[in-house]
Amino acid sequence: MAVYTELAAETLEAFLGTYDIGTLVSFHGIAEGVENSNFLLRTTEGDFILTLFERRVNARELPWFLGLMQYLAGRGLNCPLPVSDRSGTALRSLADRPAAITTFLPGVSATQLDANLCLELGKVLARLHIAGEGYDAVRPNALSPAAWGPLLDSCGESGDELSPGLTAEVRKALQNVEAAWPATADLPRGQIHADLFPDNVFFQNGQVSGLIDFYFACTDFLAYDLAICLNAWCFRDEKTFEPSFAAAIMQGYESVRPLSDAEKAALPTLCQGAAIRFLLTRLYDWINTPADALVTRKDPLAYLRRLRHFQSASHV
Amino acid sequence: MAVYTELAAETLEAFLGTYDIGTLVSFHGIAEGVENSNFLLRTTEGDFILTLFERRVNARELPWFLGLMQYLAGRGLNCPLPVSDRSGTALRSLADRPAAITTFLPGVSATQLDANLCLELGKVLARLHIAGEGYDAVRPNALSPAAWGPLLDSCGESGDELSPGLTAEVRKALQNVEAAWPATADLPRGQIHADLFPDNVFFQNGQVSGLIDFYFACTDFLAYDLAICLNAWCFRDEKTFEPSFAAAIMQGYESVRPLSDAEKAALPTLCQGAAIRFLLTRLYDWINTPADALVTRKDPLAYLRRLRHFQSASHV
Repeated sequence: MAVYTELAAETLEAFLGTYDIGTLVSFHGIAEGVENSNFLLRTTEGDFILTLFERRVNARELPWFLGLMQYLAGRGLNCPLPVSDRSGTALRSLADRPAAITTFLPGVSATQLDANLCLELGKVLARLHIAGEGYDAVRPNALSPAAWGPLLDSCGESGDELSPGLTAEVRKALQNVEAAWPATADLPRGQIHADLFPDNVFFQNGQVSGLIDFYFACTDFLAYDLAICLNAWCFRDEKTFEPSFAAAIMQGYESVRPLSDAEKAALPTLCQGAAIRFLLTRLYDWINTPADALVTRKDPLAYLRRLRHFQSASHV
Repeated sequence: MAVYTELAAETLEAFLGTYDIGTLVSFHGIAEGVENSNFLLRTTEGDFILTLFERRVNARELPWFLGLMQYLAGRGLNCPLPVSDRSGTALRSLADRPAAITTFLPGVSATQLDANLCLELGKVLARLHIAGEGYDAVRPNALSPAAWGPLLDSCGESGDELSPGLTAEVRKALQNVEAAWPATADLPRGQIHADLFPDNVFFQNGQVSGLIDFYFACTDFLAYDLAICLNAWCFRDEKTFEPSFAAAIMQGYESVRPLSDAEKAALPTLCQGAAIRFLLTRLYDWINTPADALVTRKDPLAYLRRLRHFQSASHV
């Protein structure tokens, strides 16, 4: 939660002068997005989000992300729509950083999950996958299985300080998952969100009103996105697997896009892989974030528990 | 710039259920207010600010602050209006903290000041002083001259590391200002904002659209508020005194509330006092904030320059 860049009203007013979205009424830096600075803008025409891209996000990849959001929004998905300036450009520069204005989405993230919310999440995930059909530019998943080994290596034995034996356990799991991982042609592929945690989904009156934060989106197995959601949405208090939540996500998803037998068969492997992916990035951040930093470190062991759960599950 | 407390949507929805201001549409922690956590709420009825009071602000004083804002807003001043719940209570508790919802004010703070903005600032300051007439509860100024000596003492000789001789220079100035300080009955008193820096004033189309952050407000000489503004608004790049800005503030102020001869005569002393007050609190924060903290430390020496300016001025 951070705003890294301060912005003067006069700078922003001049910037808005190159768009056709009205004049500035108010703006506030919002404490959301770990990687970027985000501002909630009100203009005489409506509400918008201004994002200044600070780090981690590769500037050369921004056109792919913004293009995907434009494509998905154009096909009716409730995601932020990048707004173009008068010259037709959505990716701009402000305060020496890449910058983009998108539409504002109403709704709030849920922290008390239930089966109804999971059902809606499943539906919207499938709608996202279908809406992405025809967006043909490929962005390889930078956090695919090929990246996990080097990520684990870079953590050295630090994981063992958190939990004795962690490094060896994860290495073994990684070998098993890599061996079982589907070949590229085995499962349907497309554009996936790849980070659809509850804080990236807005609800209003029990319905999904918005999906946000597409900066991990990539081209990968559609069912892997489902595996990420099963990890992210189905464990109470980060601990206890909730079968009714998983069943609701599956039911919602399949009511829009039925899974093939191959996808269903691959799900336990994909779920283990997703657990490893978040375990490793959390472990990396844990090691590389000072304990007294203001950024909250997320517990890697929450994903060791998920990994063990999905290892013991013959089906999801 | 911080949001200290995280808030779950479900907690906030339940809290809003005790008010008559609609149901939650969205909320975002905003990176404003060093002392408190602030959230921009949108409900089906409009926009509001939720403040959780974190520290420094004495909870027992909150009724005075909220009462003042209600009084001023009721007399037409554009300040946040604390909203009462269905039982008529504005000061509530949320997430184990004192909490209040106020109306949202449009507009943006200016960072590029000019004489026109200063003219409007002067007018609204005088309107604030007149609007406060009749709010009879007294809150003594906790940062009055009586507090400055102990504050300087608590800094030890640390100021000399910033600028050799600083401690002795400030102590001498403080003695002179204390000796020249008006007696309580000498000048008109009332409710003053006491922290009306440019970031606490919102403008829209060149007009003041809102005054915010009343948590330093207190009962003191009205002209001392003017002295604070002359310090806060009239130095380009924190360095160069801009006579046209000061003249505009005076002109704007006196167009609404003419100063007495005694107030005019006291202004150089009051301006020196205001410079000392901000020099000392900045020095205290400088010493007590780690250099690598995420909170920006403000340079105390900017107020040493102001102090010297006002010492050399026979009139303002």
